[in-house]
Amino acid sequence: MAGRFSFAYDDAMPETPSNKDSLADLVNLIVESYRREPGLQHLDSTFLPSRAKTIQTLELLRRIIFPGFFDDQKLTSANIHYHVGELLSRVRTLLYEQIRESLRYDRNRSHGAGAGDACDQCDTEAEAATLAFLQRVPAMRHLLATDMQAGFDGDPAAASLDEIIFCYPGFDAIFIHRVAHELWKLRVPLLPRIMSEYAHNETGIDIHPGATIGESFFIDHGTGVVIGETTTIGDRVKIYQGVTLGALSTKGGQAWRGRKRHPTIEADVTIYPNTTILGGETIVGSRSVINGSVFLIHSVPSDSTVRVKHPEPEIQSRLRAKKGGAINDAGLDI
Amino acid sequence: MAGRFSFAYDDAMPETPSNKDSLADLVNLIVESYRREPGLQHLDSTFLPSRAKTIQTLELLRRIIFPGFFDDQKLTSANIHYHVGELLSRVRTLLYEQIRESLRYDRNRSHGAGAGDACDQCDTEAEAATLAFLQRVPAMRHLLATDMQAGFDGDPAAASLDEIIFCYPGFDAIFIHRVAHELWKLRVPLLPRIMSEYAHNETGIDIHPGATIGESFFIDHGTGVVIGETTTIGDRVKIYQGVTLGALSTKGGQAWRGRKRHPTIEADVTIYPNTTILGGETIVGSRSVINGSVFLIHSVPSDSTVRVKHPEPEIQSRLRAKKGGAINDAGLDI
Amino acid sequence: MAGRFSFAYDDAMPETPSNKDSLADLVNLIVESYRREPGLQHLDSTFLPSRAKTIQTLELLRRIIFPGFFDDQKLTSANIHYHVGELLSRVRTLLYEQIRESLRYDRNRSHGAGAGDACDQCDTEAEAATLAFLQRVPAMRHLLATDMQAGFDGDPAAASLDEIIFCYPGFDAIFIHRVAHELWKLRVPLLPRIMSEYAHNETGIDIHPGATIGESFFIDHGTGVVIGETTTIGDRVKIYQGVTLGALSTKGGQAWRGRKRHPTIEADVTIYPNTTILGGETIVGSRSVINGSVFLIHSVPSDSTVRVKHPEPEIQSRLRAKKGGAINDAGLDI
Repeated sequence: MAGRFSFAYDDAMPETPSNKDSLADLVNLIVESYRREPGLQHLDSTFLPSRAKTIQTLELLRRIIFPGFFDDQKLTSANIHYHVGELLSRVRTLLYEQIRESLRYDRNRSHGAGAGDACDQCDTEAEAATLAFLQRVPAMRHLLATDMQAGFDGDPAAASLDEIIFCYPGFDAIFIHRVAHELWKLRVPLLPRIMSEYAHNETGIDIHPGATIGESFFIDHGTGVVIGETTTIGDRVKIYQGVTLGALSTKGGQAWRGRKRHPTIEADVTIYPNTTILGGETIVGSRSVINGSVFLIHSVPSDSTVRVKHPEPEIQSRLRAKKGGAINDAGLDI
Repeated sequence: MAGRFSFAYDDAMPETPSNKDSLADLVNLIVESYRREPGLQHLDSTFLPSRAKTIQTLELLRRIIFPGFFDDQKLTSANIHYHVGELLSRVRTLLYEQIRESLRYDRNRSHGAGAGDACDQCDTEAEAATLAFLQRVPAMRHLLATDMQAGFDGDPAAASLDEIIFCYPGFDAIFIHRVAHELWKLRVPLLPRIMSEYAHNETGIDIHPGATIGESFFIDHGTGVVIGETTTIGDRVKIYQGVTLGALSTKGGQAWRGRKRHPTIEADVTIYPNTTILGGETIVGSRSVINGSVFLIHSVPSDSTVRVKHPEPEIQSRLRAKKGGAINDAGLDI
Repeated sequence: MAGRFSFAYDDAMPETPSNKDSLADLVNLIVESYRREPGLQHLDSTFLPSRAKTIQTLELLRRIIFPGFFDDQKLTSANIHYHVGELLSRVRTLLYEQIRESLRYDRNRSHGAGAGDACDQCDTEAEAATLAFLQRVPAMRHLLATDMQAGFDGDPAAASLDEIIFCYPGFDAIFIHRVAHELWKLRVPLLPRIMSEYAHNETGIDIHPGATIGESFFIDHGTGVVIGETTTIGDRVKIYQGVTLGALSTKGGQAWRGRKRHPTIEADVTIYPNTTILGGETIVGSRSVINGSVFLIHSVPSDSTVRVKHPEPEIQSRLRAKKGGAINDAGLDI
């Protein structure tokens, strides 16, 4: 074949005889590769939660927790019991299924194939966890009501409380976090992480389901926020876009698993955009204000203001510079 | 229940008798909580715009504004009238409905329940606003044509003008902004914010519908860009990822509502990645270039180059350090 | 019309006589504008790839490459041939169609309308490219298996290898990049960019399909990562959120097209969050560690540690300050 397709690859490629072009040959080529890279397949395993169904579960929970906001029909006090009953019945089935898959999948993974298949106790546990989770819905709603109020109080651009529910990605992220965190506390495997990653995808806000977050929490704008697994956040904390609450060097990799690696933020703290706070021993004392673009790896006492002395940016006239021919944006522009 | 589910929660939880496990009991538990957190429900209210239908409206407008790019069938000059007629008819109905819901919802909220239900004038206003908006489509297309050209001229990686429409999140964000801003100027409540938050979700670019933006506007990459409600941006401005055009301390919260809190960027300014410019009195003069990672809270005259003297990063050999045993990445790594 | 709708626009607007309110008038108004802004339309052109179908293709490839992870039914060694055969048959048709549209579209664009319509060779080339791409699936799976392992080894929060596939946006981004890059190497126009922009949309990670990336690549968290078209990355490189591998000033715009504008990162390098590395001549030597928030525009030798001496942030007590009445967060807060 001549022309614009040279098919010359930079990297080594298994030889592909030219008669390998029938569909059957392609199928064989690919199925063979499943044996070579077993980690990328999930064949012959009986259990695995479904990402699609987990997201569906979240969407149903959204409608149960914020009735009337995301429904097609108008809801009234008269029909609300039927409505909630129908949604709850669906969510209970989905959640039970997904938790059961997760538990049996995890048993297969940790105790060897077959262990999960034999785990009838997993079903009882899934039923108990589903019930325990659903009984927590009122407590989650209580926390979310404080989050909504914090969002409205914190942003002069918010015209109403409803706008927080409809239009604030930070509120969406905390809704999903509060759901995922309950499942995390019930030690359901995998499911909470699928949920938090869905929130990350939707909002650009990455909160690990293990993070403990107090009431009246507000994230404004939020793109680029990262909150690590062992972070602890007190009540009435406010965080802006691009804030990382992270671990110091993860060089240890899996060796660090389970240790407190992320900071503790006490009550009534505000953290402005693009600030980075790192380390499991770092504690930001209550009522402190951490300004934007701070890089903090040590504790600060309560009632602190933390700021970086931003170097005065250098301002040069482009007109004079052009005459002298000296200016060169290329040296520093991106 | 023994085993891995202890159901011990760190935080207080309403008592849940063990017989509360039937569906009916769960429904009651949850419906009761609707009374305790009225802000999280929207029951017995007749009017509220729909997020799903608002997004549907945007998708239809995308096909009207960029005919042939997002359609299944091929469009020709011969069939285009029928095609636009059909789309426009659907969009007019959807938009009228959503604006009407928004107006009546807002009246209920601001004048007390019942005021919106009685507001027949809201319907006339919704019809007028829908018409006024649709008559602005040609003007929006004119602005978007300048934006597309600015995107192509500004990025050497762009292979064609069509690639800007198909593949540039910055262009998608400005498309949605120009639509939302028209509705904002018509003082339609809530709808413009639902639209801008959809753009934020899709692109990581957060432009408040109130922001005023001139022609030939280009955002490259864009993730993490935040442009506040009272920002003013002149013609031919170019912005990169991670740029914040924000307010100084929002400590005032709702007290600051309505005031000019965000900067003014004059014509022909370029702002490189991760720069933060804050404050309602901050004016960046025309033809200025603001380099990356600048933190700016004062005005700069026209034709300025603004840069931070980045401290020379310290470069240390890991080989020598290992011999001396002195290096400790953990102290500074994330 | 009185009341809250003044319809006073800040910017000039074509006169719209009040009788222009019938649907037919609106249709005419809009269709006329198609002639004025031809760049925003795609009428009477026979060929254009479809964004929706390109995304559909990616979703099918995801199920072929990670069998059992994203399917509704359970897959076994016994039924896998039928399953792959069915998926592959659909993906081959879709891919062929989209590549053919792209080639003919590109020919129309570069050689004038009609050239693409006449390009029967485009069909042969599309068939060859489709086959060449599908034969590369095993090689892509091999690379992705190394990426998955790198993700697990690099993050103590990862509980299993499967969690990398299910929950790591960095892994999703590299999956789509490896697919898009194969099509890029086959010089398929537009399609690879539509794919990379889909990944950007889903993950906040923006990797140009032209970038060359070695095996065992891992991006953690990832929101805000930008990797430019001519970047080269060696094996076993690890990158965190907010890292930009970009070009120096793009003032040249389209004049810079095709030149090496982005850095080279050698093997075994780690780059911590929010670091910016710029320029086509910048080479980061192998085994180097670049700490967070570094701004680097020069090469560094192998085995370097690069760090910024972050200025010690200033910590001030808010209690004392209040007594003195001197503190003013507004000056520096965002």
